[in-house]
Amino acid sequence: MKVTIVGPGKVGMVLAYTLVLRGVAREVVLVGSNREKAEGEALDLTHAQAFQQIPVKVRAGEIEDAAGSEVVAICASIPMPAGLHTRNALAQGNADLMKELLPRIAKVAPDCKLVMVTNPVDVLTWQALQLTGFPRERVVGTGTLVDSIRFRELLSEMLAIHPDDLRAYILGEHGEHQFPAMSVAQSGGERIDDTPERRALCERAKHFGIEVFRKKGNTCYAIGQSAAYIIEAILLDEKRTVPLSVLVDGYLGVNDVCLSLPVVVGKKGVERFLHPDLNEVEAGQFREAARAVREVIEGLS
Amino acid sequence: MKVTIVGPGKVGMVLAYTLVLRGVAREVVLVGSNREKAEGEALDLTHAQAFQQIPVKVRAGEIEDAAGSEVVAICASIPMPAGLHTRNALAQGNADLMKELLPRIAKVAPDCKLVMVTNPVDVLTWQALQLTGFPRERVVGTGTLVDSIRFRELLSEMLAIHPDDLRAYILGEHGEHQFPAMSVAQSGGERIDDTPERRALCERAKHFGIEVFRKKGNTCYAIGQSAAYIIEAILLDEKRTVPLSVLVDGYLGVNDVCLSLPVVVGKKGVERFLHPDLNEVEAGQFREAARAVREVIEGLS
Amino acid sequence: MKVTIVGPGKVGMVLAYTLVLRGVAREVVLVGSNREKAEGEALDLTHAQAFQQIPVKVRAGEIEDAAGSEVVAICASIPMPAGLHTRNALAQGNADLMKELLPRIAKVAPDCKLVMVTNPVDVLTWQALQLTGFPRERVVGTGTLVDSIRFRELLSEMLAIHPDDLRAYILGEHGEHQFPAMSVAQSGGERIDDTPERRALCERAKHFGIEVFRKKGNTCYAIGQSAAYIIEAILLDEKRTVPLSVLVDGYLGVNDVCLSLPVVVGKKGVERFLHPDLNEVEAGQFREAARAVREVIEGLS
Amino acid sequence: MKVTIVGPGKVGMVLAYTLVLRGVAREVVLVGSNREKAEGEALDLTHAQAFQQIPVKVRAGEIEDAAGSEVVAICASIPMPAGLHTRNALAQGNADLMKELLPRIAKVAPDCKLVMVTNPVDVLTWQALQLTGFPRERVVGTGTLVDSIRFRELLSEMLAIHPDDLRAYILGEHGEHQFPAMSVAQSGGERIDDTPERRALCERAKHFGIEVFRKKGNTCYAIGQSAAYIIEAILLDEKRTVPLSVLVDGYLGVNDVCLSLPVVVGKKGVERFLHPDLNEVEAGQFREAARAVREVIEGLS
Repeated sequence: MKVTIVGPGKVGMVLAYTLVLRGVAREVVLVGSNREKAEGEALDLTHAQAFQQIPVKVRAGEIEDAAGSEVVAICASIPMPAGLHTRNALAQGNADLMKELLPRIAKVAPDCKLVMVTNPVDVLTWQALQLTGFPRERVVGTGTLVDSIRFRELLSEMLAIHPDDLRAYILGEHGEHQFPAMSVAQSGGERIDDTPERRALCERAKHFGIEVFRKKGNTCYAIGQSAAYIIEAILLDEKRTVPLSVLVDGYLGVNDVCLSLPVVVGKKGVERFLHPDLNEVEAGQFREAARAVREVIEGLS
Repeated sequence: MKVTIVGPGKVGMVLAYTLVLRGVAREVVLVGSNREKAEGEALDLTHAQAFQQIPVKVRAGEIEDAAGSEVVAICASIPMPAGLHTRNALAQGNADLMKELLPRIAKVAPDCKLVMVTNPVDVLTWQALQLTGFPRERVVGTGTLVDSIRFRELLSEMLAIHPDDLRAYILGEHGEHQFPAMSVAQSGGERIDDTPERRALCERAKHFGIEVFRKKGNTCYAIGQSAAYIIEAILLDEKRTVPLSVLVDGYLGVNDVCLSLPVVVGKKGVERFLHPDLNEVEAGQFREAARAVREVIEGLS
Repeated sequence: MKVTIVGPGKVGMVLAYTLVLRGVAREVVLVGSNREKAEGEALDLTHAQAFQQIPVKVRAGEIEDAAGSEVVAICASIPMPAGLHTRNALAQGNADLMKELLPRIAKVAPDCKLVMVTNPVDVLTWQALQLTGFPRERVVGTGTLVDSIRFRELLSEMLAIHPDDLRAYILGEHGEHQFPAMSVAQSGGERIDDTPERRALCERAKHFGIEVFRKKGNTCYAIGQSAAYIIEAILLDEKRTVPLSVLVDGYLGVNDVCLSLPVVVGKKGVERFLHPDLNEVEAGQFREAARAVREVIEGLS
Repeated sequence: MKVTIVGPGKVGMVLAYTLVLRGVAREVVLVGSNREKAEGEALDLTHAQAFQQIPVKVRAGEIEDAAGSEVVAICASIPMPAGLHTRNALAQGNADLMKELLPRIAKVAPDCKLVMVTNPVDVLTWQALQLTGFPRERVVGTGTLVDSIRFRELLSEMLAIHPDDLRAYILGEHGEHQFPAMSVAQSGGERIDDTPERRALCERAKHFGIEVFRKKGNTCYAIGQSAAYIIEAILLDEKRTVPLSVLVDGYLGVNDVCLSLPVVVGKKGVERFLHPDLNEVEAGQFREAARAVREVIEGLS
């Protein structure tokens, strides 16, 4: 069970550390532009894994070392331009970066599942499909999984129910055009009603990424966990339902763009695409998200 | 975190072993009519726990040793009468047994949460409320949790989705008068449609208890897990949504009987009673289950 | 990661349940003489695994279904003859049983690691080597692992140190001719001195199997854990040091008999045989154990 | 189970994240000089914990919020002075920092166990004893635990044995004056012989901290794990044997200085101080380490 992490920065390293602690991946390769730093990280993690029951081999490498990986996670990113706090500001720079990285990855690890973490994630997941030629089952973005968990965490404080039992999904864009699928939100078989208070939690959840970024200069734990959750579901073939950024293929009339929808994740990557029965307003929000992401895609040179 | 298990037979011992392996309870007391056997079990478990990270004290005791327990689990039962394979055949015998046990438990552990596992569980959960005078928050029966998990397992094979992500609930009686709340069944925000094939799975799930009993002479692993799941949610204050047998208090017009409904389980026991929006047919089935359980209760001498 | 358990009785089922809870084996096959009972057990475990994060396939089967197993665990046994409480009383009956089972297993699973649990385990591990023709690396018996853990548990109560940090080994026969290798016993770099009180704990540990058997009619949790511990070390290639019954090949002048020595366990089975530097008395006890086990072997028809 | 982490920098945050993932602490308070950053970290971790089974409350706070903590971990540090790569270069600056922090902590959390992580850890553990007036059982430094694990990891690669089963201890100073207690090193009851190759691994292990620091600008995972391991042993009362920096009280004639020795860690902090039977050379190295640490202590203004 080999996993390659491209971009061992703050997010990539939380992901790597989580994989080591959970003992699911047995080999982790860190590929970064600064080889020496990657080697330092690999060494530090190698010492950390010695505390665990399950041995994990961690090493630094080049993209070629991704060969044989079951999963390749893409966390590499240009730095956030000064003064900007919007994921789309990273679009052109990261799209250029992906053009460099992804064709090489597709060549050395042609059967891997690709987990896109870099932002703007919907745009780059779409681009990854183009650059790798991989089938849509094998390319997912972390998408609104992290937004959903943030919303559930706030709901959990309000309702005193475990976040895992609050089956409320944030869908659409991992960005401004996300929305809660309140019409199908449930907990313990009971509907989670759509109230102004809960809408306010959604709004807060939507801006948590930026809020955390402003306070600490990055976000890494929740997003690193999100990537780890997906990768574990793949490696262990868990068949988990997760909202992820995937190529939308006709759902609600949307085509040829990546947005977050619930899917079933297992060893093949996406094992099934789910189609929640959204109401009219939500369907409109989904289409609006599609338009917004497509606009960014079309703006790329 | 002390747990007392009254009735260290097959089910009680799976429960005890599970608590040891999971390391959540730090002290487990086994109370049985055969003290020497209970001591043998405690000794065997004490050796098994030495393999675990988290030390757990296991010992045999009398009911008085339940003092200070956060949870008391009742697994004691008369033997199944020969040739009979219906939980209700145990009603009178186990009701008599409870009259002996429960008032003493209520006296020595007046603040514990009581988890009823003995069958017929709905009848005995109701009786436990009478015998202990405990508030309804602190008396639950494993109820249809095990039926729900069996149904989800079958659904999981059909749909290739993890059972935990199949939010389908079996409600009503832990017995013939159980039913699937298909109208609110969901997975990943998508409805789980009510088809004849899925109904057939429900029917099979309903009779799994008897099927397993016929094949191996008892059922212990799934039911032991069910009890362990509830107890862990209490001890760790997890606020989990679980279908459990609880005193119904006006839901769908039903009063003064114990039946399974989804509830939120945390350190207080039941932290909240949920009220799924069942359709008319399901509501009728729930009322019918109430009638059936009440009939058994009224038949007790 | 497929494991076949031959003999799904009390011990075999604790092993099976433990594998399900730990989620390491992904497929478990239960092979028993009573097919219907095995099917009941498999069904019950299948329901129990639906509570876990990691899905595990459990089914009943015939010996032929062991094909492709990484590990085959042998727990099958004739019943303990009435009134007898010594493992050697099972020797002839279980040796006959093994003649039936093991050649067939060797044929369908020629690359498996064989974990012998049935008693008298040293005798049967030796016999298993003859019947399968497997190299000594791939045939181990649970041996004195369970005795060591029982001794450590008692020491743990005396010294208030975690059993896993009490590196004291019971070696020799899993029976009367076992002995503590006190000359090399350590904890935290400190010697565990050889005192009369600790010797008394050894004596008690040696007879715990019989004590538990007398009290409850069997022993299953500690021995089931022992087997699970070994199998997990194999499946996860953990390279754990464990005292196990293995073919002794010249150590202390002992040949051609199986006794417990510390070995390193990983994916190949035994990855290395360790040779503690025993003192003269201990070496004599080891040779005496060899003599005793050989005597039983030679007494077999 | 409340834990306060003073200094939520790289090490403190790996510790915090590890506590969240392991679910042992149920409340974590992050106390930093930059309150806003601490709030960002707490928010990010709060979202990460929503993925876990066991809910953990994480929040930013001031030292006063340490009240009621079972453990307070001190990770706060001045930055490493430019161009210097030796822990002792931090001595005066961090000693001054501790004068500010520790008396206040002792006041609000007078019953806590104090886990010192900040370097030079032996010096500061000694100082913490002076500043808090706590008994030596309740003040420990991570000391050579991390050095021991690094050495075991290298040994593990050489010997193909799990690091946890390589009972080799690095003792003395967490710095240049550390040494391997090879005379008592064991694995599986077998001596780990003292060879030049293994001595070379010790040397490498000793300098790993600096090596990782040079490559990546800090070390955080292995040291964060070390702190987490200690804290978990305290919170769960595991009675683990761990080499930690503690006040030496006469062992080998050494007094009134903190150095690493194996101790037993449980809910009281240090439950017992162990006294390995070192050979003459090692005893000399221990005394030399005492001299070196005392020299730094005496150099403090």
